Amino acid sequence: MTVRDDVRERAVEALTRLVRDIEDFPEPGIVFKDITPLLADPAGFGAVVEAMAAAGRDENGAVVVDKVVGMEARGFILAAPVALALGVGFAPVRKAGKLPHDTHQVDYALEYGEAVLELHRDAVAPGERVLLVDDVLATGGTAGATCDLVRRCGADPVGFAVLMELGFLDGRAALGEVPVHALQRI
Amino acid sequence: MTVRDDVRERAVEALTRLVRDIEDFPEPGIVFKDITPLLADPAGFGAVVEAMAAAGRDENGAVVVDKVVGMEARGFILAAPVALALGVGFAPVRKAGKLPHDTHQVDYALEYGEAVLELHRDAVAPGERVLLVDDVLATGGTAGATCDLVRRCGADPVGFAVLMELGFLDGRAALGEVPVHALQRI
Repeated sequence: MTVRDDVRERAVEALTRLVRDIEDFPEPGIVFKDITPLLADPAGFGAVVEAMAAAGRDENGAVVVDKVVGMEARGFILAAPVALALGVGFAPVRKAGKLPHDTHQVDYALEYGEAVLELHRDAVAPGERVLLVDDVLATGGTAGATCDLVRRCGADPVGFAVLMELGFLDGRAALGEVPVHALQRI
Repeated sequence: MTVRDDVRERAVEALTRLVRDIEDFPEPGIVFKDITPLLADPAGFGAVVEAMAAAGRDENGAVVVDKVVGMEARGFILAAPVALALGVGFAPVRKAGKLPHDTHQVDYALEYGEAVLELHRDAVAPGERVLLVDDVLATGGTAGATCDLVRRCGADPVGFAVLMELGFLDGRAALGEVPVHALQRI
């Protein structure tokens, strides 16, 4: 077993043990994946951050991304430590009206209607290789919009790291060629 | 110069160089402290996380807190890495309706009207010593509400770490006896 396999195994064990299902949240019929017990466990939280950061390294452990982008708000909790673990900068993608400087904006579909995500124009430099980080890949709405925002900056989304992928929602389709690194696929 | 002084000096230098003022955001007459250039700089971001984590250690470097609580949304970006640096769990305080499990709720004053903050009832255990982390201490509305939430769980808010304290707004008053650890006071 390689070091990386060991890291991943500990992360998946922590996920399995510490993420809890909340029935009927945010609405009837939906089962919400609550990561707060995982975040409260320092060993488990540390393990998933280390395993997600592997998505920004090559097989020899060298860092191959220039920046980590995290999506508001739960994505921030994972993306910021992943950026620090890789020794690269962090940039937040936020809902409309939250970022104070010049932004790119992308509309994305919600279950009912649309919303707008923003990224500072100077948050990611042209040509940078960007790792996207969030907690869950569901329908891929925010993931696809974030890829668009990174490309508007002239940069290249090279991977999308998540704790859990809800495979039945086919969020991968919204990401096109961008590889998904999910610790767990449900 | 002690190691801790050196850490703090590097953090303050990064803050001074990398936080930018945005005039008239979110409304005319307000100067917004934009931390995104700091977050994009891995050395600067790492330095402020290390310096903030010192608020959870005693003079010998021993960790003296049991949990870190961060406030939605920018607080998450700093609080999660601070928790990992200290090797303790992280708990998010969120706006109403975002946390899926049983919560405590506290109303807090906004400039116009009120809002509600929530913390999972099981996020912090009775008797735990809790370090609060956010980016800026302004009027102290969310800071005071977060102290109340921690106390409702039977735990003890033992410090509030921020990058910047806007001293002219006297947010310290809302924190009572809880010590404020600000890297910079403006």
